Amino acid sequence: MTRPADPPRSDQSLTVGFPALRGFCTEALLRTGLSQSDAATGAEVLATTDAWGVVTHGSKLLRGYLRRLRAGGLHVQGQPHVSAEGGAWAVVDGDSALGLVTSTYAMQIAIAKARLQGIAYVGVRNSCHFGAAGYYAWLASREGLIGLSMANDIPSVAAPGSRGAVTGSNPIAYSVPVAGRRPLLLDMSIATVAGGKVYAARERGDPIPENWIVGPDGRPTTDPSMYPAFGALMPAAGHKGYGLALLIETLAGMLTGAGFTWQIHSWMTDDLAEPTGHGAAFVAIDADAMMPAGAFGRRMETLVDEIHAAPRADGSERIYVPGEMEWERYDRAMQDGIRLPPDVVASVREAAALVGMDVDRDLG
Amino acid sequence: MTRPADPPRSDQSLTVGFPALRGFCTEALLRTGLSQSDAATGAEVLATTDAWGVVTHGSKLLRGYLRRLRAGGLHVQGQPHVSAEGGAWAVVDGDSALGLVTSTYAMQIAIAKARLQGIAYVGVRNSCHFGAAGYYAWLASREGLIGLSMANDIPSVAAPGSRGAVTGSNPIAYSVPVAGRRPLLLDMSIATVAGGKVYAARERGDPIPENWIVGPDGRPTTDPSMYPAFGALMPAAGHKGYGLALLIETLAGMLTGAGFTWQIHSWMTDDLAEPTGHGAAFVAIDADAMMPAGAFGRRMETLVDEIHAAPRADGSERIYVPGEMEWERYDRAMQDGIRLPPDVVASVREAAALVGMDVDRDLG
Repeated sequence: MTRPADPPRSDQSLTVGFPALRGFCTEALLRTGLSQSDAATGAEVLATTDAWGVVTHGSKLLRGYLRRLRAGGLHVQGQPHVSAEGGAWAVVDGDSALGLVTSTYAMQIAIAKARLQGIAYVGVRNSCHFGAAGYYAWLASREGLIGLSMANDIPSVAAPGSRGAVTGSNPIAYSVPVAGRRPLLLDMSIATVAGGKVYAARERGDPIPENWIVGPDGRPTTDPSMYPAFGALMPAAGHKGYGLALLIETLAGMLTGAGFTWQIHSWMTDDLAEPTGHGAAFVAIDADAMMPAGAFGRRMETLVDEIHAAPRADGSERIYVPGEMEWERYDRAMQDGIRLPPDVVASVREAAALVGMDVDRDLG
Repeated sequence: MTRPADPPRSDQSLTVGFPALRGFCTEALLRTGLSQSDAATGAEVLATTDAWGVVTHGSKLLRGYLRRLRAGGLHVQGQPHVSAEGGAWAVVDGDSALGLVTSTYAMQIAIAKARLQGIAYVGVRNSCHFGAAGYYAWLASREGLIGLSMANDIPSVAAPGSRGAVTGSNPIAYSVPVAGRRPLLLDMSIATVAGGKVYAARERGDPIPENWIVGPDGRPTTDPSMYPAFGALMPAAGHKGYGLALLIETLAGMLTGAGFTWQIHSWMTDDLAEPTGHGAAFVAIDADAMMPAGAFGRRMETLVDEIHAAPRADGSERIYVPGEMEWERYDRAMQDGIRLPPDVVASVREAAALVGMDVDRDLG
């Protein structure tokens, strides 16, 4: 881990070690009244996400979670629990606990049931924003199972032919174990791009491509200032992204008893004292139950080798499999520290201030 | 059902009743030596697909299936059977029977197991092309369950950074029951467009959009003549479509012991006497096991109503949910007959000739 000699200013990036970042997040969560176990779980999710380089969904989110925990919309003593279950399924009531805690709990149940039944589905209601979907998929793959993870969210994405938002950007992730390698790991939203990319173009004063957002008339626009007040994101690949959004809404929202579409509250901007009502869904599949032990992982290794060896396009240096970039960043982060960009550092400073901590004193 | 007064020529479309088309396909399949039951199953898939208006994947495929059945690559006496199973899963060995038969059998097992366990996965190996993925998803939804269906195929789609094809166009479909309405039904490939659209542009002499195919250097090209000999389709939404292709390959190919990527043979152009080695995967979820009876369907109805009532974009007359167009075509087809366009009629004529039948005499 390296650390700047001078105290970083808010417009600077900061490089911190994984244990330090995890410890900082744990302490911040503890100060809201969260249990040691729940604080550690939440911090592990955030620090791992930053280590993958997915800094939009790591410790940058801590501030928002702390606010909700302090205001009561997230219950510091919430107890996620199984409200109904059967052979290969369960529905978890999140009791408005931290979404990272509820989602970890739910995937652990999916893993345990999949080991008995081959596959298992665990739906979640009364949850909140759950950070990076990929983390929970990875919980399965690091134990040798295939994992899928998804959630619904407030509408921000148009349907083909709609004027405004109809579905959430509904993230979906999967992770698949590969013999001798890091698992495949894909984490995507069903929108063409994240809203953050639209904001960034607006700040730069740049026009955006025609397939990013629709404007106030529901037609594509290249003016980023239209989002989110007067427009909506466009679904990736049109009706395909829209169709996936509704599949995710079905599994994470409709099938769990969670809020759906406009019933969900924004975890960032709506009343901090009220639950948001998000839903989520987790699926685990035990490949080793279906094939001779190890055979599946070796088949995956063959597939990955084949893709790596495929002829490359002019100007292309590598063909990546999903997650490969994240794992390379992860390995560098564990070696050299996690680089938090200025916007994340600024958010973490605000988070620290909420609970009487100080980044320069407590993080590093 | 209406029928032209004069015998249709090969450049004409033909409108036929559903029972007539199904009966014609059944008779043609019977003449290859297929059992009555298997012939009826295959014909039901093809005629239903045409009734949905998905005429690229209906009776147009009969010719190719008949050729393979006669040449031996598809086994007329093939017996799909469960080769391994557990609580909520099974792997079916298709024994190189007609893919439509194997897939119907596999989804029926998934449905039965899901009724016991809540969710079930059935993987398939030693299968072949299975027609329209959506049909098998619908087998689940018409019995009140959520259904998913997917398959792998020979590579035709590039990965980001690859020069040529790396994954199949790997179709995925889902269907979800909705109270008082037809089920949601989405059937999509992970490519930006079907190869058929590229061929059509080539025939018209039109350039194609920049995100449809890559050329011989692996870079996007607007020249449709590059596909398939010198290029590959592009994945829908870039790394998102590529990532979904690998998830489908994982569940339909890697986890089932089927062929994958270049191990698969083209069901149309490769040796007709050899099995193709396709894999497939089917998932069924019993929503009524997880919620009070009927509650899930009513929630879905609320969601569909909400989408229908959403503000429309300028110039948009309706906001469709997935499958709505197909069901409206289906209802018209059941009333007025199925309209087979000229390319389908030409293919069906060739199919008929293979087994001593005649469209003008036997179809109608």
